[in-house]
Amino acid sequence: NPFAQDASMTTLVFGHKSPDTDSTGSAIVWSWFLSHHEPGAAEARVLGTPNTEALFVLNRWGFDVPPLLTEIAPGTPVVIVDTNNPAELPEGINKADIQGIIDHHKLVGGLETKGPIEITIRPVACTATLMYQLMGGHGGHAPEGIKGLMLSCILSDTLEFRSPTTTEVDRRIAQMLARELNVDIPSYAAEMFAAKSDVSAFSDAELLRMDSKEYNVDGVEMRVSVLETTSPGTVLARKASLMAAMDGVAKEDGADQVLLFVVDILKEEATLLVPNDLTRQIAEKSFGAKVSGDTVVLPGIMSRKKQIIPVLKVN
Amino acid sequence: NPFAQDASMTTLVFGHKSPDTDSTGSAIVWSWFLSHHEPGAAEARVLGTPNTEALFVLNRWGFDVPPLLTEIAPGTPVVIVDTNNPAELPEGINKADIQGIIDHHKLVGGLETKGPIEITIRPVACTATLMYQLMGGHGGHAPEGIKGLMLSCILSDTLEFRSPTTTEVDRRIAQMLARELNVDIPSYAAEMFAAKSDVSAFSDAELLRMDSKEYNVDGVEMRVSVLETTSPGTVLARKASLMAAMDGVAKEDGADQVLLFVVDILKEEATLLVPNDLTRQIAEKSFGAKVSGDTVVLPGIMSRKKQIIPVLKVN
Repeated sequence: NPFAQDASMTTLVFGHKSPDTDSTGSAIVWSWFLSHHEPGAAEARVLGTPNTEALFVLNRWGFDVPPLLTEIAPGTPVVIVDTNNPAELPEGINKADIQGIIDHHKLVGGLETKGPIEITIRPVACTATLMYQLMGGHGGHAPEGIKGLMLSCILSDTLEFRSPTTTEVDRRIAQMLARELNVDIPSYAAEMFAAKSDVSAFSDAELLRMDSKEYNVDGVEMRVSVLETTSPGTVLARKASLMAAMDGVAKEDGADQVLLFVVDILKEEATLLVPNDLTRQIAEKSFGAKVSGDTVVLPGIMSRKKQIIPVLKVN
Repeated sequence: NPFAQDASMTTLVFGHKSPDTDSTGSAIVWSWFLSHHEPGAAEARVLGTPNTEALFVLNRWGFDVPPLLTEIAPGTPVVIVDTNNPAELPEGINKADIQGIIDHHKLVGGLETKGPIEITIRPVACTATLMYQLMGGHGGHAPEGIKGLMLSCILSDTLEFRSPTTTEVDRRIAQMLARELNVDIPSYAAEMFAAKSDVSAFSDAELLRMDSKEYNVDGVEMRVSVLETTSPGTVLARKASLMAAMDGVAKEDGADQVLLFVVDILKEEATLLVPNDLTRQIAEKSFGAKVSGDTVVLPGIMSRKKQIIPVLKVN
């Protein structure tokens, strides 16, 4: 196939900015699937440095970090995974030749395509779950590394099945993959979460942006950041400097306020940092929380998608 | 199930404004599918009077015209079929509880949902084709009327497999349904197209809006109208009054120009009406056509989606 040699015909597969395990892993999974009958048909890219969990997972299953994509030439064939939000994608994404979208988030609007394409969005916890289904029988004969990535994506996005986003399908596919790979889920997930919890190398601003999405709530532009960790004490020890960094990050990113939720994966609760009156008001109105100091614990809150965004309000 | 009795919980399934056979039929098909395990779970609606072909099809397979939906109460659960374009849907659609989208058009952008939902868009010719696939085995035990609707939708959208939008999947499913229903495709399609070609009851303005979509081309707002017919002479005999009605329709609908393509299903060509210099320029720049009079024949042109929209240009 002469086209496979032509770099301009290679489909680029990528997820969102600030790549996590699912955005990094599922881009590699789908580029494998698109290429397994036609070598060179697709290649994975990342839109930034993957987080520490994703780097651990790539290393564990023998993958290099995919090349960084900084800009897209108009007309480049692309498949977008794990997002449908233009704000989380490179500028000029609508000038690319978007051939497909595979995602599990709400429809944001804003992406456009030139012709009819393949879009699959399902309310499962993880993009890799959906890919396993879309592959039909092909998921079963994926190489061990690809199966390992799919398992890792599911464990990451479901926080080892603790997140309320978890569906029976996510759980069933992950357990099947773990059996085939002879992986013990609790100990492997603990290694993944330990990797994610090692945030010592990151500046405060980097932590605030690591897993962060922007939303407009009652006219206030919020950067809603989540840090999922098995070691919340490590993050909370830095709360003063994290709060001090919030205004600068918000200003640089065109937001009014950063909200940082430190999610304790094992205790299944979140701690929200409360640097000012606006944040206190949001905590009270949104979660019915009583705030006294500069943090507030929100029992049971683990999922931005299911438990934070739907209830956020200012007034 | 007490909820099934509660009208507020019933999911409304509908397609686009100016409903054709696919928009009307596939809404009924999907509401059947959603309801077949849970009676009353879903009901079909239409956003206007179905065209003459759709009315023929409903009558042929024993269905009433679905109730007209004029406005949507906020929070109403809905499934949108055969479009993803907010301009073709009721105002306030983004305040509804959009639970799913099943479509085969390009992604336009503009629809938003509150949470993760089920979206399936595939580059097949017809929504009903995609539904048959999504149903898995359930399509096979659908009642005869539902199968008849699916067959009709496919024959309508593919112009009996003549349109270049036709895929092997559309063809295969239609042929299988026809065998099961003991329907002779050529004679049934001829009846459908004759029904569609009977436009005597419609005013010029109604004809111009019957199968029409708005597009911005090089800054010009175009209402791109198509009339698929086995009797083009009937329409073209009215060309003078159709052209005279264009300015009024454009003005009322906030467009700059109406383009009317009369598609001859049997000869597989389109005739474009050329009322003015702008239209002549569009015909020449877009299709390389030489225009002398007030119409121009475009051989082989049958599909707005595949052959008209992608090439339209003004300059």
